[in-house]
Amino acid sequence: MRPEAAPSLVRVDAFAERGAEFELSAEESHYVARVCRARAGEEISATDGLGHLARLVILELERVVRVRMESVADVPRTRRSIVCCGAPEGDRGDWLIEKLAELGVSVFRPIDTSRAKWQTKSARLERWRRLAWAALRQSRGTWVMEIEPPSLWSDVMASLPRDGDRWLADPEGPRPTRQAAKEISIGVIGPASGFTESERASWIDSGFKAMCLAESRLRAETAALCWAAWWAAG
Amino acid sequence: MRPEAAPSLVRVDAFAERGAEFELSAEESHYVARVCRARAGEEISATDGLGHLARLVILELERVVRVRMESVADVPRTRRSIVCCGAPEGDRGDWLIEKLAELGVSVFRPIDTSRAKWQTKSARLERWRRLAWAALRQSRGTWVMEIEPPSLWSDVMASLPRDGDRWLADPEGPRPTRQAAKEISIGVIGPASGFTESERASWIDSGFKAMCLAESRLRAETAALCWAAWWAAG
Repeated sequence: MRPEAAPSLVRVDAFAERGAEFELSAEESHYVARVCRARAGEEISATDGLGHLARLVILELERVVRVRMESVADVPRTRRSIVCCGAPEGDRGDWLIEKLAELGVSVFRPIDTSRAKWQTKSARLERWRRLAWAALRQSRGTWVMEIEPPSLWSDVMASLPRDGDRWLADPEGPRPTRQAAKEISIGVIGPASGFTESERASWIDSGFKAMCLAESRLRAETAALCWAAWWAAG
Repeated sequence: MRPEAAPSLVRVDAFAERGAEFELSAEESHYVARVCRARAGEEISATDGLGHLARLVILELERVVRVRMESVADVPRTRRSIVCCGAPEGDRGDWLIEKLAELGVSVFRPIDTSRAKWQTKSARLERWRRLAWAALRQSRGTWVMEIEPPSLWSDVMASLPRDGDRWLADPEGPRPTRQAAKEISIGVIGPASGFTESERASWIDSGFKAMCLAESRLRAETAALCWAAWWAAG
């Protein structure tokens, strides 16, 4: 028996108790049976994207794959990050979602500002959530990036956790000095057209520290990605 | 008169001496006359992508735009970076080029390894160079990212400058400790399928220091971007 029948983690939306038998979804069944050509008796790893890593034994591979839960373990998350990002130009949201998810960002919050609003319909949100899952599988992570619907920047600001590092991407700000990141880090990135002066002042007044991410002028989505890369390297 | 008739820098491939009169290319003429609706007598800024920033006065806007060179200044480059990157999966090179250029990377060197080769024809290289120019304009930079054709990794290694910081992206490596970057920094990123053990050992033997860019497993192009973001923030 191969040590692991499927290289990517399989998605299971809710885990039953140990020993329980259940069926994988049609999509996951296809992946296990057709893409990986797993066989009955082999083991696969699965996650619910909420920090659980399970081992499943394959019982049957018919129309759907039937498995038995062997064990499930909690995977703790030591550091979390929240990216609040204004709308980029054009349709650059998809790859931004993919990359932020790949870097292990915990929550993505699109923010609407007076200069720019996200044109995000629910179908697009569903697409983003699928992209986040695909990135999670690719990186064999167990915590899927949460994606909120777009909200007004001031509502988002009011709802952010109080006990985190607070950063505002700002070309006029100083270079960040590397420091031990707190458990939660929050990065705020303005839209392509920038925050207004009063919006910017509100973020600063709320304890967000201006930081310059690069010498060159960055697009909104590049700045968001830069912030996430900086956080991920910390 | 508006202070600057065109928000983006105009591309001029070679500057004449001060006072000289010349015509912009068809593409730049279109940008100045149609997109920006500049008028005769207005000033625009231009660069050759080689560290020169010029001021031009518009003389005529007919089929092509005719300008007079008013002044040209050298823009020094204090830090340089070279990204050597193995082939990513699929066709993810285009956005990688755009993002590296936006971050101000100096040179992009695609490297072929025993596990993966770039499928880069000359038309694609031309496209990449156009993307690098577009990113330069967007960021109002004056140094365009150089793009080399793909070469064997060991040939690239042998041709790299001796006097730079040397980094190898490596999930098994330690987290980077922030340090004052030297004038030149070199980042090496393996292909999607990774370096072989002996390739990796060669980089390490040549003074490249392993660094882990993120907790999660990154795609090749995300790792390259992460390295560039880390460099740009330094």
